[in-house]
Amino acid sequence: MKNNQFAIRPTEYKDQLVELETIGFLDKDNESETDPIKLWKSFLSKSFLEAKTSSAFEEKLKTYMATESLNLNEYLDSATNVSVSAFYNVALQLLKFNPDVDFNFSDPLGAMKKIQLMIADHNTDFFSVDELKSAWYWLLATHNKNGQTFIDFLATKGFFIRFYGKVNHPLLFNGKTLPVFDPHQLIREVVYVESPQDTDHDGKRDLLKAEILRPQATENGLKVPVLYTASPYNQGTNDETGEKLTHNVNVTLQHKEPNNLQYNDIEYHAPETKLPHSRVVNGQTKRAEEDFSRESSYTMNDYFLARGFAVVYMAGIGTKDSEGLRTTGDPDETTSTISIIKWLTGELPAFTNRIDNIEIKAWWSNKRIAMTGRSYLGTLATAAATTGVYGLKTIISEAAISSWYDYYRDGGLVIAPGGFPGEDADVLAEETFSRRLQPGDFHNVKDTWNKQIEKINQGQDRTTGNYNTFWDARNYHKDFKNITADVFMVHGLNDWNVKPRNVERLWNGIKHNGVTQKLILHQGQHIYINAFRSIDYNDIINLWLTHELLGVDNQAKEIIPNVIIQDNTETETWNAYQDWANNDNEQIKYSLSSDKLNTGQPVKQELSFNDQLDKKSFDFYAKHNDTWENELLSSNEKLLKNRLLFKSAPLDDDLTIDGKTLVNLKVSSSQNIGLLSFQLVDYGLAKRLTVSPTLLSKNSLAGTFDWREDDLREFTYGKETPFKMISKGHLNLQNRENNYKVDELKPDVFYNVGVELQPTFYKLLKGHQLGLIVYATDFEMTVRGNQDIKYTVQTEDSSLIVPIHK
Amino acid sequence: MKNNQFAIRPTEYKDQLVELETIGFLDKDNESETDPIKLWKSFLSKSFLEAKTSSAFEEKLKTYMATESLNLNEYLDSATNVSVSAFYNVALQLLKFNPDVDFNFSDPLGAMKKIQLMIADHNTDFFSVDELKSAWYWLLATHNKNGQTFIDFLATKGFFIRFYGKVNHPLLFNGKTLPVFDPHQLIREVVYVESPQDTDHDGKRDLLKAEILRPQATENGLKVPVLYTASPYNQGTNDETGEKLTHNVNVTLQHKEPNNLQYNDIEYHAPETKLPHSRVVNGQTKRAEEDFSRESSYTMNDYFLARGFAVVYMAGIGTKDSEGLRTTGDPDETTSTISIIKWLTGELPAFTNRIDNIEIKAWWSNKRIAMTGRSYLGTLATAAATTGVYGLKTIISEAAISSWYDYYRDGGLVIAPGGFPGEDADVLAEETFSRRLQPGDFHNVKDTWNKQIEKINQGQDRTTGNYNTFWDARNYHKDFKNITADVFMVHGLNDWNVKPRNVERLWNGIKHNGVTQKLILHQGQHIYINAFRSIDYNDIINLWLTHELLGVDNQAKEIIPNVIIQDNTETETWNAYQDWANNDNEQIKYSLSSDKLNTGQPVKQELSFNDQLDKKSFDFYAKHNDTWENELLSSNEKLLKNRLLFKSAPLDDDLTIDGKTLVNLKVSSSQNIGLLSFQLVDYGLAKRLTVSPTLLSKNSLAGTFDWREDDLREFTYGKETPFKMISKGHLNLQNRENNYKVDELKPDVFYNVGVELQPTFYKLLKGHQLGLIVYATDFEMTVRGNQDIKYTVQTEDSSLIVPIHK
Repeated sequence: MKNNQFAIRPTEYKDQLVELETIGFLDKDNESETDPIKLWKSFLSKSFLEAKTSSAFEEKLKTYMATESLNLNEYLDSATNVSVSAFYNVALQLLKFNPDVDFNFSDPLGAMKKIQLMIADHNTDFFSVDELKSAWYWLLATHNKNGQTFIDFLATKGFFIRFYGKVNHPLLFNGKTLPVFDPHQLIREVVYVESPQDTDHDGKRDLLKAEILRPQATENGLKVPVLYTASPYNQGTNDETGEKLTHNVNVTLQHKEPNNLQYNDIEYHAPETKLPHSRVVNGQTKRAEEDFSRESSYTMNDYFLARGFAVVYMAGIGTKDSEGLRTTGDPDETTSTISIIKWLTGELPAFTNRIDNIEIKAWWSNKRIAMTGRSYLGTLATAAATTGVYGLKTIISEAAISSWYDYYRDGGLVIAPGGFPGEDADVLAEETFSRRLQPGDFHNVKDTWNKQIEKINQGQDRTTGNYNTFWDARNYHKDFKNITADVFMVHGLNDWNVKPRNVERLWNGIKHNGVTQKLILHQGQHIYINAFRSIDYNDIINLWLTHELLGVDNQAKEIIPNVIIQDNTETETWNAYQDWANNDNEQIKYSLSSDKLNTGQPVKQELSFNDQLDKKSFDFYAKHNDTWENELLSSNEKLLKNRLLFKSAPLDDDLTIDGKTLVNLKVSSSQNIGLLSFQLVDYGLAKRLTVSPTLLSKNSLAGTFDWREDDLREFTYGKETPFKMISKGHLNLQNRENNYKVDELKPDVFYNVGVELQPTFYKLLKGHQLGLIVYATDFEMTVRGNQDIKYTVQTEDSSLIVPIHK
Repeated sequence: MKNNQFAIRPTEYKDQLVELETIGFLDKDNESETDPIKLWKSFLSKSFLEAKTSSAFEEKLKTYMATESLNLNEYLDSATNVSVSAFYNVALQLLKFNPDVDFNFSDPLGAMKKIQLMIADHNTDFFSVDELKSAWYWLLATHNKNGQTFIDFLATKGFFIRFYGKVNHPLLFNGKTLPVFDPHQLIREVVYVESPQDTDHDGKRDLLKAEILRPQATENGLKVPVLYTASPYNQGTNDETGEKLTHNVNVTLQHKEPNNLQYNDIEYHAPETKLPHSRVVNGQTKRAEEDFSRESSYTMNDYFLARGFAVVYMAGIGTKDSEGLRTTGDPDETTSTISIIKWLTGELPAFTNRIDNIEIKAWWSNKRIAMTGRSYLGTLATAAATTGVYGLKTIISEAAISSWYDYYRDGGLVIAPGGFPGEDADVLAEETFSRRLQPGDFHNVKDTWNKQIEKINQGQDRTTGNYNTFWDARNYHKDFKNITADVFMVHGLNDWNVKPRNVERLWNGIKHNGVTQKLILHQGQHIYINAFRSIDYNDIINLWLTHELLGVDNQAKEIIPNVIIQDNTETETWNAYQDWANNDNEQIKYSLSSDKLNTGQPVKQELSFNDQLDKKSFDFYAKHNDTWENELLSSNEKLLKNRLLFKSAPLDDDLTIDGKTLVNLKVSSSQNIGLLSFQLVDYGLAKRLTVSPTLLSKNSLAGTFDWREDDLREFTYGKETPFKMISKGHLNLQNRENNYKVDELKPDVFYNVGVELQPTFYKLLKGHQLGLIVYATDFEMTVRGNQDIKYTVQTEDSSLIVPIHK
């Protein structure tokens, strides 16, 4: 078991004392105490909240061991000084570590080091009174075996109940906010924000429902910052009708008519539209007319609800209780997203309901907003940031799309998000069009909606897979330059739903904006990471938001590493870096020859494979994508003739790939159509981390006492496997120059192509082999035409360029 | 989608009116209303809790459709009567069903019938005022698409907040309690019950920690019933040290010395022990000295916490904060379990802490107790019931062990609980010995504990697998006769952890006790079923406990079917029966012959198989039990010589097996040792229910407003499979007569054996084939000796006797 904490704030002793006083560990009864034993006992007494009498407290003391032979009660009765060793024996128990399993009473300090827990300064083997206060401070800031700081653990025991209703400002410890606001006294209210758009063309500006949760203390004048989550899912989804729209992927690849398109020809320009006037305000109020009982929440937001932050959810245009239509990522959706921010900062009006035009302001807002959420939610955070909207101080964009072409398309091909073949922009629009869930509302907008779906279907163009005006309207990259908010990115290196290119383009795309940018790359797929044992994600975000939204000078920007990457070879290992996927990274160039990747001179060979399978195999793989993936990578007979596999010699040393691998090929197709797929593979028998985390204990993480809970999870080793896919890439051979211009493709003529694989950070262990697989149909992502196409590669002019870390 | 509700209480109209008044749907403003439209509108208004003004309410009305063309607001404005059709169009929407997907506005009544939702009486196509009141009553009692009654759904929206602090007695609707007690005002307290035993031999009676949660209203005189859960897990577990004790199962089967033991020779008799005196009481108090912040809870108990029930948890002897030693199911554990009940009824003392001897009584208890929980928890409920202890009105024993021999052993063999090879009574004792988690306490008891583990290890006797005095002490069957509590049983027909024999013996073992017994058999494995969409389990238990613990005459015993069994061939199908596994069920006798099961005359054949595998296959199967299981049942080559497979002809009609199938064999072993395993198999390509439920939506079920949540789950179809195991059985050929007497086994001599397979209720569909597999090593359950043993069956004297339903 290894602990990793990146959000511990170095704090001077005098500040430690102030904080210990603020939260009540030091008070007039013990602050002048000169006996370290008595002082320690008073700290313990304040921590054992369940014991209401001295007898009960002493009973609890007896359950801890201080040394190999004395329990804590005996030690406190007999010792005259607090030994560092006894202190940490008890600390390890308070942190829920188990003797014999995690540590031994004979060497607690050794265990603290091994587990990577902080040991406080001490001049001798015994703590002075000052050292002891400091040691207690650092203990409070240290993570326990369940991934919570000791002070957050005490919070779940009810430590901060005494502050409920008595503080009217956030309380901080070690640079982070504490849960001093009663989460059962939250104000819940609904408002309807008037957005400057009319996407359903009903002649009125779209009203958007926002659900607000804010601390009771706002009623007494506290102005609070907002965690704002724009989630198109959170008013419900249309799973059945969405499913019906899902496209058949067992269709052939079509020849495309060559053209000479320039970017200008397909560039998106916002149409000039006449915007209806804003509603005439018919009165003002500070009180909402509608509330709600349970929002669809992000557990990280729940964590902040008791800590003095408001949380606002909005689903956006075309969702239940709102107006407008779903558009899947276009500028209208961005406008809808930032309308809430503009209301929070006073720039746009909101109303108490959809008919009376009574305005309600966000009078409780401190006008500092962060956006949170994963996937589509993080995508809208990114979209909002590209507008430079006032008040948006930071976004925490997790597993976010940065260009919708990079989500549904690639290299002139329709490329499905992993696990969702046949999904597309229209399917997502339908799934999130929750106005359908209100039949009385849907009745009036049905025809308009059917036309909208048809328009999206036309625009997305599944026939060519080309980048076009539709996709250009949905490319946030174009507006990266406008980003003024600080950006905190989180992404899974095994996320084949929202592929890593999306975060890489954002990471490298805003380096000259002058904003602070942070990045965490984990080994999971498309998941949240706020409930893991081995990384202090909640603490990191707490430190970050305390700085960004409360304006506290807590050095968050300096303390949090620029880049944190989870190691792919060892459990519970997260490392800090300065950068990721830097274009100046060193490279290794491999030549390709029959079965081999080598760094020597290229040889001249022609290697071929045919994409077509017998019908039985095809049908089986179409239903069992996992089997196909496994057999593609394995060295068994089944797909030998349907792909090329190149492997390096076993590595002499560990090798870490950092960035985008490039495949250069000279290649021909036997027909006037062609698609290529690529996989970079780690060959070598090893236990590897599973990409979905393991549940360690259900509901064991609460944000505070008697409040919503989350499941503790962790990445663990799966069974031993012989290989693992590192990265992927795809190309339509008719899009050799770019994704919008269509090139001629003559049968059996060789062309040069260059394909950038998805960026990664991956350590190949010594003895493993790097592999490259060249194939065509990707059962998980491309169309599956099962066409009789032979592809031939000339090795002399082909190569693999791998970017290397250090 | 099909709804199944077994807990709707037939209620007379006059009682419906009283209940509607009690909960506030009828009041002085609307009870005399003669306009059905106005009455309906007032019901709707009371249901749309989120709308605080008439404008907001009208906006909500507009989102519902009443007819194919009118929304609800328009309908209420224009209609003069409430049409039955409009009412149920709206009702279906209120119940979260989706138009086009689940129903059409043109035929709501057709959908109501299809989904199995209750339609209220009506004389015409329009509801009279009286009919409308009744229709609204029944709507409140009806389940929505998420498996909650409409009234429970309204509760989660905050409907009952107005009652908080204002009622001092439970409130009922349709025979079931309502959540009118604020769950955030619960009193949490810890007491230490003095149990009449001294299992750790320290010369003092064992004190056992109990965690109590009770409504605040108890402070004002309300006496409440108790849901008591005895869970050895709930103070923590020792996963690592438990794992270390796990036994190696890759060991050979040993020859056993024949004997002539009678039951008397091995019968358990409680030893005469001198019990220390009870502590001298040193004072009385009504206030505890210790509380807790978050108990390890059962979500079904959480549901009752707002409904006027107290909940008590206890982990028992040898657990954290308690005294004594773990014993795994012996009479001492039963004594420990019922001590809490005896405290709740005033028969035993409890103290506020472990040293001061200040007594605290359960002064708030109404002395009516139910025990709840699954697996070990349900087992202890069964154990408690066998004592006939006063105050225990009913147990709800889910997936409970009724004899520990049936859990860890079978037929003279060590048989692991499915999924846990190598587990045994000592491993479980160690895992639950949570005193280890308190090093200061463990320090004093370490040596005693090590001796205890050794004693259990000796007693369980993994060498012979025989039934002995150790297991006789852990056989609750012997005391079934003492059960006076009503027994509600729940078990999975695919539970291979606690196998179905355990519930069958309890079900058939108490039929003459004169108690009421109920049984639910589901298609899952070792799971809880209180959060499924297709069965109203919470309602059933609510009806049951309202009767048992509050003494309400709600006809629970008549309304709830004796036996409810989930169909194994269709989703969302639960049927009611009078009985299960009745010994008088009709039988079909099959003869065995090469590859075949047939009902004709037996033929004379000798069929053999050898248990030994090549080392590579053995090693692979030892690691991959699923692959072994799959290949054992499939018709491929791999295990052809290692088992016998008999299949019936394809069935002409559906066939339902109901009870214990019997295998009679004349069989020889080539050595003086031998074990046989059996599987009954359903052969036939079909989509089948998965034995682990599918998560439908996370955290979507709350017991009431702003309270703990549960995940909505349901059994759904998995991928098509060619076969499914129905039942299993095992026998040591040296235990032909019974499990304690060891018989001689001479090589190559034929013996007659009869083996009862685990009981089941299983429908084989027409066209499917019934299969019987005879084999030896069961990789999932037996030892794995990989010994060269040839088994031969003489078919003429062998048969399969299958009990049939109807």
